[in-house]
Amino acid sequence: MPAPTPSGIITLLTDFGDSDGYVGQMKGVILTIFPRATIVDVTHRIAPQAVLQGALVLRDTAPHFPDGTIHVAVVDPGVGSSRRAVVARTAKGWFVGPDNGLLGPAAAEAAGAAGAGAEPGPGAVDWFLLSNPRYQQALVSPTFHGRDIFAPAAAHIAAGVAVEELGEPVLEPVRLVVPEARARADGSEVNGEVLRADRYGNLVTNIGGGHLLRIGVARVIVEIAGQVLHGVAESYASAVNGELVCVVGSSGCLEIAEAGGSAALRLGAGPGAAVSVRRA
Amino acid sequence: MPAPTPSGIITLLTDFGDSDGYVGQMKGVILTIFPRATIVDVTHRIAPQAVLQGALVLRDTAPHFPDGTIHVAVVDPGVGSSRRAVVARTAKGWFVGPDNGLLGPAAAEAAGAAGAGAEPGPGAVDWFLLSNPRYQQALVSPTFHGRDIFAPAAAHIAAGVAVEELGEPVLEPVRLVVPEARARADGSEVNGEVLRADRYGNLVTNIGGGHLLRIGVARVIVEIAGQVLHGVAESYASAVNGELVCVVGSSGCLEIAEAGGSAALRLGAGPGAAVSVRRA
Amino acid sequence: MPAPTPSGIITLLTDFGDSDGYVGQMKGVILTIFPRATIVDVTHRIAPQAVLQGALVLRDTAPHFPDGTIHVAVVDPGVGSSRRAVVARTAKGWFVGPDNGLLGPAAAEAAGAAGAGAEPGPGAVDWFLLSNPRYQQALVSPTFHGRDIFAPAAAHIAAGVAVEELGEPVLEPVRLVVPEARARADGSEVNGEVLRADRYGNLVTNIGGGHLLRIGVARVIVEIAGQVLHGVAESYASAVNGELVCVVGSSGCLEIAEAGGSAALRLGAGPGAAVSVRRA
Repeated sequence: MPAPTPSGIITLLTDFGDSDGYVGQMKGVILTIFPRATIVDVTHRIAPQAVLQGALVLRDTAPHFPDGTIHVAVVDPGVGSSRRAVVARTAKGWFVGPDNGLLGPAAAEAAGAAGAGAEPGPGAVDWFLLSNPRYQQALVSPTFHGRDIFAPAAAHIAAGVAVEELGEPVLEPVRLVVPEARARADGSEVNGEVLRADRYGNLVTNIGGGHLLRIGVARVIVEIAGQVLHGVAESYASAVNGELVCVVGSSGCLEIAEAGGSAALRLGAGPGAAVSVRRA
Repeated sequence: MPAPTPSGIITLLTDFGDSDGYVGQMKGVILTIFPRATIVDVTHRIAPQAVLQGALVLRDTAPHFPDGTIHVAVVDPGVGSSRRAVVARTAKGWFVGPDNGLLGPAAAEAAGAAGAGAEPGPGAVDWFLLSNPRYQQALVSPTFHGRDIFAPAAAHIAAGVAVEELGEPVLEPVRLVVPEARARADGSEVNGEVLRADRYGNLVTNIGGGHLLRIGVARVIVEIAGQVLHGVAESYASAVNGELVCVVGSSGCLEIAEAGGSAALRLGAGPGAAVSVRRA
Repeated sequence: MPAPTPSGIITLLTDFGDSDGYVGQMKGVILTIFPRATIVDVTHRIAPQAVLQGALVLRDTAPHFPDGTIHVAVVDPGVGSSRRAVVARTAKGWFVGPDNGLLGPAAAEAAGAAGAGAEPGPGAVDWFLLSNPRYQQALVSPTFHGRDIFAPAAAHIAAGVAVEELGEPVLEPVRLVVPEARARADGSEVNGEVLRADRYGNLVTNIGGGHLLRIGVARVIVEIAGQVLHGVAESYASAVNGELVCVVGSSGCLEIAEAGGSAALRLGAGPGAAVSVRRA
């Protein structure tokens, strides 16, 4: 697979929060190694150590960046243990972080996008260890690999270092189980769950918009938290304030929202809550 | 009116919060279209769907940016409805967002600044639709125009596209009613209200500092939430801790603060609370 | 002392929060004066007016930035009073902000790093007033020196203005008392305190890792909030969930953490809590 050309853009996604200096330290390290970097904060408010949440936000965000972007993600409860530090290379860009499943969904999505309609080759993800001390800080804190291993790796890749130089190939990276919706063979019913609630209290599910189109948006019945909702609207604004509404959200999946309010609060539902969709 | 030259700076103000990937997606789209953009976050913590709050923060912030800056603002409860997507062009820069009043106060301020002491022409605001699909993402989500319409429009403007290419002129953009203070003809009394509370709990009002100067800062009496305050101090630090103090804040308007504390909590007051000023 | 060459990087650390437009206004002012600035947010969530907390985050973050970086810090309860506005110049970079002790620990650290193993000269910190109105905004708000004095000073320094032009030398800047740990002469016992709790609830102390090494990590006994902990682990991940663990954190000091939880909540401890370390 031909490596992409680095764009100079490095994105950061962590669970570090915004109150400490940890993110700032990572940025300083990046700019020291590669002063021309364009550093973009995705979010630092992933819930502490919520690897699945981080993986989903990364997967939904990374595709919107230019080819050759380097994505650094750190949600890392195992920092300092034997968990490995890794980079995934795809034809679209790189993903740098702990080998705990955080990077996999985004890397697979990038590889899929690169491979769509092309030879099988570009659709691959190549994984490498970040073990070469030459591309780490001189002193590596066992509690802060974001600063001492991941940030330097990203900066060196942006500067043109090949990932083969960072460490050995990793053949079996840790895989994360992302809950997937199950559809009946005839498409008349789909069972999934809520993956996350966003700031507005919208409940984002893992049920793809395609299922809803197949059923027919006017005939869809959605069940969640004991409530039965009818039909899929074009947008949140289709409902009057206080009304629950189903839409296909910006990531292409079913979302349950309350117009002018929070569906998460209204329904007392969050990640893991069962959602079923069937034909009226 | 001559269009300003784009500075390459694109600011972002939204109510998206910092926990999801939505802002990151907008940045990715911008950098894909215009890689040299300098993206500046103003805030993403406007209260959900608080259009007036967003309009006021934008109005107070935009004037401090260089000419040719493109300001993107998204507080957009009507996304996906028939509300229009628009851009306002002024001699100072551009304002991109929903046609719900969010952009108007900032655009008027920019036009006023540009027009001050000049021909009437430069003081104008020209509004255009963002309807040309050529300058939108290929697929426009009805729930996320920030990513699919506003971010691309800003990036294309930064790259040199004339707003006339983005869509038809808009003759009657939606106007927001910004509460204004009412002064007695002789200037001896002004009645206004609190527009917002900031992080320190300072209550920022819509009563301009000019009114206070006219009354005389030593003779001013301020009434708010049943309390009567005397005089206007030079700064918060003029008061001892725990004391309420009136100052002319950094936006040029009367603010009520508690030294070392929060006036908002102390007075139980927030946006909309009546404030009156009179001569002792 | 030879002045460093400006890197073009300007960092921002404030207690302004992320909800208002204050930080955005500072960025606009910087970019107006020096459009090529690379502006990096360290944090804007220092607790309101918590000068010591701000000083510690700045001290721990600044060393990771390239030489020639300009650090702007604003935690400034005395804004508008007689407290002075200052810049500290070191061989590593500049520190701009209020003369209330906020900048001192970081400047001393930078000077120490620059001076290590070199002539005494480079280890110095030179302080200057920011009094020259030529390098301030035309109108200086008595409540917002961040925008009207500190941001312009940083931008002008980045553009190459010598600090001698900004104002007179300051011989006695205000010093902050940073609580320091006290060790017994034989190193067998050290008494210190918690300096801050981070987002994970980890309690960061002022007891340096060197003390623990001298005692021997296996023989260390830590007392905090009535609890006695044995030994220092390599990383948080060494403990099972729910267990309290002592580690040497990324700033080189003793931290008390709860694996998978918050030691701050578990122990009801925060800044100022006494911590003692002795040999078993």
